[in-house]
Amino acid sequence: MNNNSYKSILIIGMGLIGSSIARVIKEKKISEKIYGVDNDKLIIKMTKKLNIVEDIYESIDDISFQFDVIFICTPLSSYRNIFKKLNNFIKEPTLITDVGSTKVSVINDYKSLVNNKKILFLPAHPIAGLEKSGPEHGFAKLFDNRYCIITPLNSKDIFIERISNIWKSFGMTIEIMDAERHDRVLAMTSHIPQLIAYSVVGTATELEKQMKDEVIKYSAAGFRDFTRLAGSDPIMWRDVYEKNKDAVLEMLGRFSEDLLTYQKAIRNNDLNFLEKKFAKSKEIRKIIEEIGQAGTFDPTEKN
Amino acid sequence: MNNNSYKSILIIGMGLIGSSIARVIKEKKISEKIYGVDNDKLIIKMTKKLNIVEDIYESIDDISFQFDVIFICTPLSSYRNIFKKLNNFIKEPTLITDVGSTKVSVINDYKSLVNNKKILFLPAHPIAGLEKSGPEHGFAKLFDNRYCIITPLNSKDIFIERISNIWKSFGMTIEIMDAERHDRVLAMTSHIPQLIAYSVVGTATELEKQMKDEVIKYSAAGFRDFTRLAGSDPIMWRDVYEKNKDAVLEMLGRFSEDLLTYQKAIRNNDLNFLEKKFAKSKEIRKIIEEIGQAGTFDPTEKN
Repeated sequence: MNNNSYKSILIIGMGLIGSSIARVIKEKKISEKIYGVDNDKLIIKMTKKLNIVEDIYESIDDISFQFDVIFICTPLSSYRNIFKKLNNFIKEPTLITDVGSTKVSVINDYKSLVNNKKILFLPAHPIAGLEKSGPEHGFAKLFDNRYCIITPLNSKDIFIERISNIWKSFGMTIEIMDAERHDRVLAMTSHIPQLIAYSVVGTATELEKQMKDEVIKYSAAGFRDFTRLAGSDPIMWRDVYEKNKDAVLEMLGRFSEDLLTYQKAIRNNDLNFLEKKFAKSKEIRKIIEEIGQAGTFDPTEKN
Repeated sequence: MNNNSYKSILIIGMGLIGSSIARVIKEKKISEKIYGVDNDKLIIKMTKKLNIVEDIYESIDDISFQFDVIFICTPLSSYRNIFKKLNNFIKEPTLITDVGSTKVSVINDYKSLVNNKKILFLPAHPIAGLEKSGPEHGFAKLFDNRYCIITPLNSKDIFIERISNIWKSFGMTIEIMDAERHDRVLAMTSHIPQLIAYSVVGTATELEKQMKDEVIKYSAAGFRDFTRLAGSDPIMWRDVYEKNKDAVLEMLGRFSEDLLTYQKAIRNNDLNFLEKKFAKSKEIRKIIEEIGQAGTFDPTEKN
């Protein structure tokens, strides 16, 4: 991608992902100017302080000019409203992509609300994130060496390559997938782990007071890994479970069945079953480390 | 603690924890000499290569001299055999401590097998670990800023302070606890998160081949946190579930009930319930970060 391939890019939603996109665009000199939109006054203030965009607005309605590219980086429940606004707002051919964690719901919302032919929309899901939320935690390298799944509305759309190239310039590898399949795969890799993490942390918080304090104190024993996921944005995740209900319930059923087999093995002292299952899981970890998708954990504290 | 307070220390079990103890003893100059025992020939070879002990033996039976301090760092299923051997081996007053993840079973094994008055035993559990196993992954700072729970056999034993001071010299904070309570708290902070991690990874590995490959590929979406825990030593964990069966089954029951309430909320589109629960879990994470027990996660790869 050439220096400043685009004149102006708009990012709607300046949270962790939106602000990281602003940073990588700036760092890689992908656009001359970057603008932001966010309806949260605190986020607007923080974004201004961070100096990562040219200007930031409370709503698309406040903007009187057009953009080459628009990124939608907001919780899934806001998409219908954003699509309605964009359908009226867009006057020039505009590349639009998003970062939503479910894709079937995004496509359905889009199809039911957008008829503006100037909108060139490629649904996307960059598989990158962190347990923190807010623009202050974003960073340009978040997308480096990660996958970006795209679920095109029409595989013949000529603008797919142009939008894919922007994601690629962030350091990502593009994978094309059917939206239904995306939602099933992500139910297993993301939505179920996240829900279980919330649930384990929830169970711990409902123990009697002293026990709860001790669980927090001795969390380095393993519990902390669950709290890391549970540190993510509650609104974002609430929306994911609404929008991907069927796949989540299916995978949750599978998980519950499997957990019962472990429970039974413990009750019956079936040590052989446990050892075999545990050894198999260890192998999966090894593969994830080998393909460079494990991240890096340091058991000591940062400061 | 003075330089080389002890003449010689023996570490039984040179895995991740044992080798980290050897390293911290060397680094902090706690003992003039450090010896190891391990029944695994590969671990013996690796320990020699790492040059972290004076000498390493295949069994206590091969040793003809005595030690000031002995650390037991082996899976729980080996304790009965080790206690029997130590009961015969010890001729001089010797401080002995361990690192076992359960404490009731350790105390029961000890009481039923040891009658040697020269043995001064303090059951301990340093709350520190990593998903890796083997001496090559150990490091001296593993214990720094972490808690060490001790569950004394008799609170009046005068040697408790001496052994505690060794753990303190590793950078640990000592907490005295009743063994039964330790096992319940650890069931929640450690044994349940670990079992659930194994189970989630197990569920993913039993999906159809293509789906399984995709789950591994896109594991950066959250799944990787579960695989991290599931990367731990299978034998060690198999033994934990045998030895702490009752507390694990109780906490597993609580977790399963709670997970069902999340499942029901998703089925009934109870977004308010989900958002409230998720927000509460996020707070727990904040506390763990504030008290410095969160570790540090970097979403990029090490190499």
